Amino acid sequence: MGAAGGRRAGLALALALAAAVVLAAWRRRRPRPVREVLFFPSPPSCTEALLAEAAEPGAAVRPCPCPLPRGDCSLSRLLRLLLSARRSLDICLFAFCSPQLGRAVQLLHRRGVRVRVVTDAQYMGLRGSQIGLLRHVGIQVRHDQEDGYMHHKFAIVDRKMLITGSLNWTTQAIQNNRENVLVVEDAEYVEPFLDEFEKIWEKYNPINYRYFSKDSK
Amino acid sequence: MGAAGGRRAGLALALALAAAVVLAAWRRRRPRPVREVLFFPSPPSCTEALLAEAAEPGAAVRPCPCPLPRGDCSLSRLLRLLLSARRSLDICLFAFCSPQLGRAVQLLHRRGVRVRVVTDAQYMGLRGSQIGLLRHVGIQVRHDQEDGYMHHKFAIVDRKMLITGSLNWTTQAIQNNRENVLVVEDAEYVEPFLDEFEKIWEKYNPINYRYFSKDSK
Repeated sequence: MGAAGGRRAGLALALALAAAVVLAAWRRRRPRPVREVLFFPSPPSCTEALLAEAAEPGAAVRPCPCPLPRGDCSLSRLLRLLLSARRSLDICLFAFCSPQLGRAVQLLHRRGVRVRVVTDAQYMGLRGSQIGLLRHVGIQVRHDQEDGYMHHKFAIVDRKMLITGSLNWTTQAIQNNRENVLVVEDAEYVEPFLDEFEKIWEKYNPINYRYFSKDSK
Repeated sequence: MGAAGGRRAGLALALALAAAVVLAAWRRRRPRPVREVLFFPSPPSCTEALLAEAAEPGAAVRPCPCPLPRGDCSLSRLLRLLLSARRSLDICLFAFCSPQLGRAVQLLHRRGVRVRVVTDAQYMGLRGSQIGLLRHVGIQVRHDQEDGYMHHKFAIVDRKMLITGSLNWTTQAIQNNRENVLVVEDAEYVEPFLDEFEKIWEKYNPINYRYFSKDSK
């Protein structure tokens, strides 16, 4: 190889090295998409510190006197994922009775996150349901008007993280049932769920309610 | 660049081209992982031709006289994904009553696929449950012995394709409910579900059953 060829080869090597450095820096800056599986039952645990810290970040948290363990578990992980919301939280849940998850959702609403909840008409009035409390603080809730169940159990955080599975957000399901939750940050899965949410949200708009029976027409 | 440099550059180019051709061929041979989302309700549809063709591939299928539509729908897609099993099908289902899905599972069992079913003890005896029929043809079924529900709704095809979501395999859920099913061929999601299945399968082994109450001890 002549001197000119050597210089060209050196230049090509330098360019390749620079490209590798830029690529590595770009990859490091872009957080890896969240990809997780959570299984339940999750043992009873104290989530007081987690929720108090989320309510007032940086404030001194008074230690909770309860005897429950404070370690990480599927419920605390689910709470952390939800509490990572900055702009929006779209929830589509057959049954929502968990006081801890209810508190997290109220907290996000207070923080200015746009929360929307879709639920099942037949289950939202059950004892312990969080739906009334969510409505009371001003969170938008819509419910089905159909014969079948609104049986979805998913949430979408900031229109990019999908949390879905078999788990209804009830203490019974969290502490006693065998359940699974997938966490997916991948547009190929998230976008169909966003479309489904928007479709259902519009379909269950109260302006479309029919308050008369077929006979009264 | 001298003659030797030119020859080396030519050789490098030829090698790079050969590598690109091999890589493209390898990518073409390796099927793209299945990544799907199915939503329900799925309209009532005739799956007779699909199931008959799967039972006897290539045989002349007698046209079904029923008036139901035969087009693709979420149920037919779910059936096709299950019927793609060649070696194993591991099912973990709270409720299993759909005759069409039951027929597909029996068909796989007859074809020599190793089928294992885990279900919920309180729901497996309900009217219309497929569990008794599956056991009758020799499919291994195990059920929980716990207070909580075995509330999972997933299946794993050939230990590599995960089918999971909110959908119980019942005609009510398929035709009337709002439900979702994710289909994932990605070891990062599939392996935790395989581990969960094996753990539950062993835990619910009948040799571990306790037929006595605490008082009779």
